Amino acid sequence: MADVKSDIEIARAAKKQPIIAIGEKLRISSDDIIPYGHDKAKISADFIASLEGKRDGKLILVTAINPTPAGEGKTTTTVGLGDGLNRIGKKAVICVREPSLGPCFGVKGGAAGGGYAQVVPMEDINLHFTGDFHAITSAHNLLSAMIDNHVYWGNELNIDIRRITWRRVMDMNDRALREIVMSLGGAKNGYPREGGFDITVASEVMAILCLAENLSDLERRLGQIVIGYRFDRSPVYARDLKADKAMAVLLKDAMQPNMVQTLENNPALVHGGPFANIAHGCNSVIATKAALKLGDYVVTEAGFGADLGAEKFFDIKCRQAGLKPDAAVIVATIRALKMNGGVRKEDLSAENIEALVRGCANLGRHVANVRKFGVPVVVAINHFISDTDAEIAAIKDYVDRLGADAIVCRHWAEGSAGIEELAYKVVELADGGQAKFQPLYPDETPLFDKIQTVASKIYHAGEVTADKAVRDQLKAWEEQGYGNLPVCIAKTQYSFSTDPTLRGAPEGHVVHVREVRLSAGAGFIVAITGEIMTMPGLPRSPSAERIFLNDEGQIEGLF
Amino acid sequence: MADVKSDIEIARAAKKQPIIAIGEKLRISSDDIIPYGHDKAKISADFIASLEGKRDGKLILVTAINPTPAGEGKTTTTVGLGDGLNRIGKKAVICVREPSLGPCFGVKGGAAGGGYAQVVPMEDINLHFTGDFHAITSAHNLLSAMIDNHVYWGNELNIDIRRITWRRVMDMNDRALREIVMSLGGAKNGYPREGGFDITVASEVMAILCLAENLSDLERRLGQIVIGYRFDRSPVYARDLKADKAMAVLLKDAMQPNMVQTLENNPALVHGGPFANIAHGCNSVIATKAALKLGDYVVTEAGFGADLGAEKFFDIKCRQAGLKPDAAVIVATIRALKMNGGVRKEDLSAENIEALVRGCANLGRHVANVRKFGVPVVVAINHFISDTDAEIAAIKDYVDRLGADAIVCRHWAEGSAGIEELAYKVVELADGGQAKFQPLYPDETPLFDKIQTVASKIYHAGEVTADKAVRDQLKAWEEQGYGNLPVCIAKTQYSFSTDPTLRGAPEGHVVHVREVRLSAGAGFIVAITGEIMTMPGLPRSPSAERIFLNDEGQIEGLF
Repeated sequence: MADVKSDIEIARAAKKQPIIAIGEKLRISSDDIIPYGHDKAKISADFIASLEGKRDGKLILVTAINPTPAGEGKTTTTVGLGDGLNRIGKKAVICVREPSLGPCFGVKGGAAGGGYAQVVPMEDINLHFTGDFHAITSAHNLLSAMIDNHVYWGNELNIDIRRITWRRVMDMNDRALREIVMSLGGAKNGYPREGGFDITVASEVMAILCLAENLSDLERRLGQIVIGYRFDRSPVYARDLKADKAMAVLLKDAMQPNMVQTLENNPALVHGGPFANIAHGCNSVIATKAALKLGDYVVTEAGFGADLGAEKFFDIKCRQAGLKPDAAVIVATIRALKMNGGVRKEDLSAENIEALVRGCANLGRHVANVRKFGVPVVVAINHFISDTDAEIAAIKDYVDRLGADAIVCRHWAEGSAGIEELAYKVVELADGGQAKFQPLYPDETPLFDKIQTVASKIYHAGEVTADKAVRDQLKAWEEQGYGNLPVCIAKTQYSFSTDPTLRGAPEGHVVHVREVRLSAGAGFIVAITGEIMTMPGLPRSPSAERIFLNDEGQIEGLF
Repeated sequence: MADVKSDIEIARAAKKQPIIAIGEKLRISSDDIIPYGHDKAKISADFIASLEGKRDGKLILVTAINPTPAGEGKTTTTVGLGDGLNRIGKKAVICVREPSLGPCFGVKGGAAGGGYAQVVPMEDINLHFTGDFHAITSAHNLLSAMIDNHVYWGNELNIDIRRITWRRVMDMNDRALREIVMSLGGAKNGYPREGGFDITVASEVMAILCLAENLSDLERRLGQIVIGYRFDRSPVYARDLKADKAMAVLLKDAMQPNMVQTLENNPALVHGGPFANIAHGCNSVIATKAALKLGDYVVTEAGFGADLGAEKFFDIKCRQAGLKPDAAVIVATIRALKMNGGVRKEDLSAENIEALVRGCANLGRHVANVRKFGVPVVVAINHFISDTDAEIAAIKDYVDRLGADAIVCRHWAEGSAGIEELAYKVVELADGGQAKFQPLYPDETPLFDKIQTVASKIYHAGEVTADKAVRDQLKAWEEQGYGNLPVCIAKTQYSFSTDPTLRGAPEGHVVHVREVRLSAGAGFIVAITGEIMTMPGLPRSPSAERIFLNDEGQIEGLF
């Protein structure tokens, strides 16, 4: 194990090609590549528009079991599968999310894959990258400033400052900004009121950017944002403040998908990164749709486990964008399944078939769930050095009984050579015409019933509870014309239930909807169960204390 | 006048060259150009380092009379003079500041020159550009978050939360954030305290980035930032929080100067943009020094009028960086001088020799002031269509009696063809060896005496007053070892006095120092006279309401 290289060592040793050359692989001319340095680029909006009418490739979703501290490697598998498909001669494009800058200074490592399945340049991707998140921060906060400015100058719209729901955002873990009182200091600074900051990835602007088809759709959605309510409880829109168009100006460049490369010089679009709890947790529609025109196979991922990520990918992203996924890969590791079967983290290296099989219940339910959307499934076992042959046989046997394949993948250690079998299987599934995609519920289902449908069919909950105020709010939104929106359930990612400690495949639990929020621009209703943190804090010893530039000017300590 | 084109029409009609070609003019290879799109780039840190030891070109400062609503055109003249020097066969590089994004959504138009003397792409330069200001915002706010996080986890450093001076920043005009109470909401969010936001250009990180020689100097300065005081009143540094190195990581790319081009395809470095009141108001040292290695003549500007901008350029930037300017251009317009002579804005188009000559007192004092630094001066009359021959003769005569030349420049209307005469004169002055640059006061002068020196020699004030608390604070800093720092006086830009309505050349006024602040990382002591706004607000009808993307996806309403 002494010669196992760290992710950053592997990334630095990468033989990157000029980004222009990566664009050429997709037949994008250098004029349509907007370079950011020599190894990052955006694809021009004009070029994206020129793809209209071209044939679409096959869409493959990579999702996972419920995350555990043992790690699953969903992004790593997404990148590895993209490389694997290219290796077996298919033209494949990878679509993943952009990581958030702020959490890199807390505890989180980078989010650009790992081992020999990474996208590069990983330092840039994890920090400022091409500035998309900064643009989202600016656009969001411009609207915030225009709200208080409107109130300051006479409040012609009669905004009830107690009912302003639009907060401010910053791409930083800063708990001190969660709850503030602002506009203090007298008349020159406005009317004091309560407010606060979320982290940028929690901004509705992020979700909007990721769901918008193009700039005019972006502008329309920005205008639809509900920023709060008047004294008569009627909603106030961003367009009432005339903020929508200037916000679109700030987002013009950010709307263009980013292109980078894998360690094997295959193209990857890294674009957008909404929260996977209070938002839908997928990369941008514009990147996915462009990739489908550029490649024969597009491999994309969704946030957290399949109960949150895949459900939202199907019911929100695919529903809104008219996407029809052709296959799904569910990533699991033997270690994580053993944790689901009750093994403690420190005991994971020991073989434990019984616990593994017990933990497979979690995987089994995700397989069944994804099939409810009419999408064929294959299981990817992201291989760890401690996995035993008996364990591998046990999980293959378990998945076989579900009528699916479980394929051991060694992309982390071997790159594309370690994931060929999965690549062939994915091609077989995607080309086989088995997929008959349909969302879990029709648009017309009442909002509360939609929540109940997801809770019962996906989470296997016994009951959904909510206070009268929550139910009344949902009814009010239905009367205002929002009844056709899908629901976006904010739930712990660690369990099918709302109790993060309940691993495996719990049944009959109660899902309590504590609060509901309207994301009218993004186009969904958020139902919040449990405590959802939209502004993280830093730990006692934040990783920022150990991040520095070495003598060669390279970044150390980020990963 | 019907066919006079707007700045944006002229900019859009520009025949831009690829930024790689602009780099070639300065013999920068394409590997050392880090492109941001096809028309913007950063110059690599490695290339900058490779310039060490090369011969320096001549440094020319463009400054101005006190600004009036009539406009002077300092950036326009800086750009025009750079084009003019290139036109007469000299290798000249322009160095100007980056504009701030936030104010573009308030009342301010763009800041990239005007008419036929502009740097392009002006929309990008005025908005996100290459992300430098976003990086500064992130680095600043990382330190802020680490301060409150330190207090939250036990406050080992004994920081007195009432005496934390480090605020947060945002590149937005948002008066609601000027004064806030934060960390509300109970134990999980920390200890409630007062705080607030400044606009990003007011951040000490901005001043530091603009004064740092290289990345290691940047890191050293970041570490020296004083964020507040302990209960025993001893200062707490950013390095005590171990924030300095991670901040440098966030600023790594931002430290590399940005290159764009003028409408005439000459190279311009647009880098850094600190406030010209609470900071020194000049572009970055790293850009200026690189330009001096790359060109035979470097034309740069300083903020506001010469009383603030030039004084700080000389006493702060040149002093710290060891720069020796060879000539200065003082920009004036006949309209602005007439305003200084008492004419109202609506009467400016009428000839008024008497008022013009009266207003020339303002110009005359700036000429004398700049000469106090040992730098030879020429006056540029930025021509307006309403200027009469008699008015031009009167100002030429006035300046002639000062022993200098006043040269009419028509670069706004004609580009470099209209500014040849000034270009020849600047070459004559810069090559003439007359310059014997020296700062106004030596490092050893006590801090309060430094303020008095600037006030008496530059402002012609009769007296400087300050409360005992202010004088005690200055003495305390001297005892802590900060006595050698230069002073940075924050004063209204509209007058030599602290009364913005007092135009012309007032004498014997009182300058009251209301407050002093330590910028230990940037390396100066700020002395605040009058009300200085570090977070602007939006007007009743902000320009954001009229900024939009047209059908071609171009930005309208920004200028």
